[in-house]
Amino acid sequence: MSIGLILGSSRTKSNSKILAEALIENMEHETLDISELSLTDFEDFRHESVHAPLDESTQILLDFLLKHDIIIIFAPIYWYGIPGKLKVLLDRLSYVFRQPAFENKKPKEAIVLAVGGDRPRVKGLPMILQFQQIFDFIDIPFDHYVLAEGNKPGDVRSDSRAMAEIAWLRQYLQKGNTHEGHN
Amino acid sequence: MSIGLILGSSRTKSNSKILAEALIENMEHETLDISELSLTDFEDFRHESVHAPLDESTQILLDFLLKHDIIIIFAPIYWYGIPGKLKVLLDRLSYVFRQPAFENKKPKEAIVLAVGGDRPRVKGLPMILQFQQIFDFIDIPFDHYVLAEGNKPGDVRSDSRAMAEIAWLRQYLQKGNTHEGHN
Amino acid sequence: MSIGLILGSSRTKSNSKILAEALIENMEHETLDISELSLTDFEDFRHESVHAPLDESTQILLDFLLKHDIIIIFAPIYWYGIPGKLKVLLDRLSYVFRQPAFENKKPKEAIVLAVGGDRPRVKGLPMILQFQQIFDFIDIPFDHYVLAEGNKPGDVRSDSRAMAEIAWLRQYLQKGNTHEGHN
Amino acid sequence: MSIGLILGSSRTKSNSKILAEALIENMEHETLDISELSLTDFEDFRHESVHAPLDESTQILLDFLLKHDIIIIFAPIYWYGIPGKLKVLLDRLSYVFRQPAFENKKPKEAIVLAVGGDRPRVKGLPMILQFQQIFDFIDIPFDHYVLAEGNKPGDVRSDSRAMAEIAWLRQYLQKGNTHEGHN
Repeated sequence: MSIGLILGSSRTKSNSKILAEALIENMEHETLDISELSLTDFEDFRHESVHAPLDESTQILLDFLLKHDIIIIFAPIYWYGIPGKLKVLLDRLSYVFRQPAFENKKPKEAIVLAVGGDRPRVKGLPMILQFQQIFDFIDIPFDHYVLAEGNKPGDVRSDSRAMAEIAWLRQYLQKGNTHEGHN
Repeated sequence: MSIGLILGSSRTKSNSKILAEALIENMEHETLDISELSLTDFEDFRHESVHAPLDESTQILLDFLLKHDIIIIFAPIYWYGIPGKLKVLLDRLSYVFRQPAFENKKPKEAIVLAVGGDRPRVKGLPMILQFQQIFDFIDIPFDHYVLAEGNKPGDVRSDSRAMAEIAWLRQYLQKGNTHEGHN
Repeated sequence: MSIGLILGSSRTKSNSKILAEALIENMEHETLDISELSLTDFEDFRHESVHAPLDESTQILLDFLLKHDIIIIFAPIYWYGIPGKLKVLLDRLSYVFRQPAFENKKPKEAIVLAVGGDRPRVKGLPMILQFQQIFDFIDIPFDHYVLAEGNKPGDVRSDSRAMAEIAWLRQYLQKGNTHEGHN
Repeated sequence: MSIGLILGSSRTKSNSKILAEALIENMEHETLDISELSLTDFEDFRHESVHAPLDESTQILLDFLLKHDIIIIFAPIYWYGIPGKLKVLLDRLSYVFRQPAFENKKPKEAIVLAVGGDRPRVKGLPMILQFQQIFDFIDIPFDHYVLAEGNKPGDVRSDSRAMAEIAWLRQYLQKGNTHEGHN
């Protein structure tokens, strides 16, 4: 079972990264850190040319998704939703999901960890509903998410409920379960 | 009553633009077209320096919001939410809403028109809930949105329900109502 | 094309009824008015006995759904959701959807009209998301709803946007479209 | 700190009750079990007579809410929402929240535990959004909920994630925190 983390924060020190470290310490994984990507605007050529070559970021995203069984997205909640830069990357799913390789080797499960400063456990729900629709559309099981509270970097450590949920998720990952066996 | 349109599509011919033209034909307005903006990544310096100078795009967004009474956002629905590039712009609200000028002169009403290809009237709802939370946070009344169906450019014209809602909105705008008088 | 209305208000004069009359005037239809039903509590015997005889209200609901092509639910929004008494009726879908007759003759489309006093166009959305999940589960197409504003009986008539949407719906019904042909 | 449980299941053996016992074992509390209430239909007299005497169930609900600092609602998810009978009770909040006593002595925090059989952690979210709006309206802090998976009575015990969240909630309650001190 191979684990891939997508870090969606643009900051080098972020609550998202703190959560990622708490979850994954000493476990094998690969990280795709969007603060290190230079994203060009996503250009929507869907209706002009289906067979355009993939741009660099799309290729990176595709390769990453093909390589891992479990994808864990860590994201700060910006304006009650996915941060712009992360969304610029995810919009490239429009090309990714059309690749034949993706149909055969896509991840078996997606997990989302999101950190926000304004009542994230309730006000983060539209973002979770959006992720549900995204993962339903590309047919990747999505059952687990954590909504954690934090504003200044480091804050999130004092959200004891989020930390308890992350401790459970860590055990879940260590058991090497795929989604199918999660109960 | 001054009307400002934010066009959130990256395409030069888009269903969003068709909706905008249907709504606003022969009415005075100004357009901020994000396909003409070159956006750098939004950098989140909130916790390092509150008084950083605004970057160019943030200044453009602030000036636009200060200038208009009604802001109408036109957006394609990408992956059940706000398109990445538009979100990169909107994330700059983190700086905009802290400007003293904004508190005094912010728009009196926000309206959203969104076009999607996958059952937008139901699957677009998390995006509307997100806009509700955004506009509640910055205290701009938000009651009106249209969710229209369209995939290929031009499709949206055959969504007769959306066109009827837009005809109503056009009358609403022509009466020059601000939100306060909308009933 | 046969039209069945479910009136979900307990009041004899209600905004829901006003909307129903505006929509359906001079069109053939049948009405199931829950203010005239005496509902016993829904008892959940699912796990004890699948083959219990249907209680009277369940039978009424089943017969009504078998008889009509389009079901239109009119409901006041009570506490941001379905009124209790209407939900007591709808909970009986747990028996209805298991009847073989239902699989073969269920309605071809469901429509919801809801009236609320507290920003229904945004605060009514969780209720619409719930109806989406209900109709998806029992596999009845659901694309059209109207969220209208009204508190005191009669108020709803001055929600000009809702009235415009109802005028569109009325044309839609008069064309005798089933869902499949709605564009 | 006084704890009041509202049990929203109509079954005498239910997953909701199992959750309640796991959460509250050996802690002082009072239970309002709706399976023991005989509810008449909620009649909406708001617009006819504000000063009608409260009916028996409304009085029971009011007294219960006045008596406890923390209210914990346990509910099976029926058709992606609040069970009908529980909603018939909660609709009486329309009278409860208008009582002057309620304004002065209402609970300091509300918590919701919901059990469903169809991907409750995502498909239960519209119900949580509804509860958020309910508690926001009556101004009772609401930050904590658990969405647990279970269909047949007893199932819920094998949802290890829900059980971990309940273990955290139990500690939270034992610390005697009110909402204000929850971090």
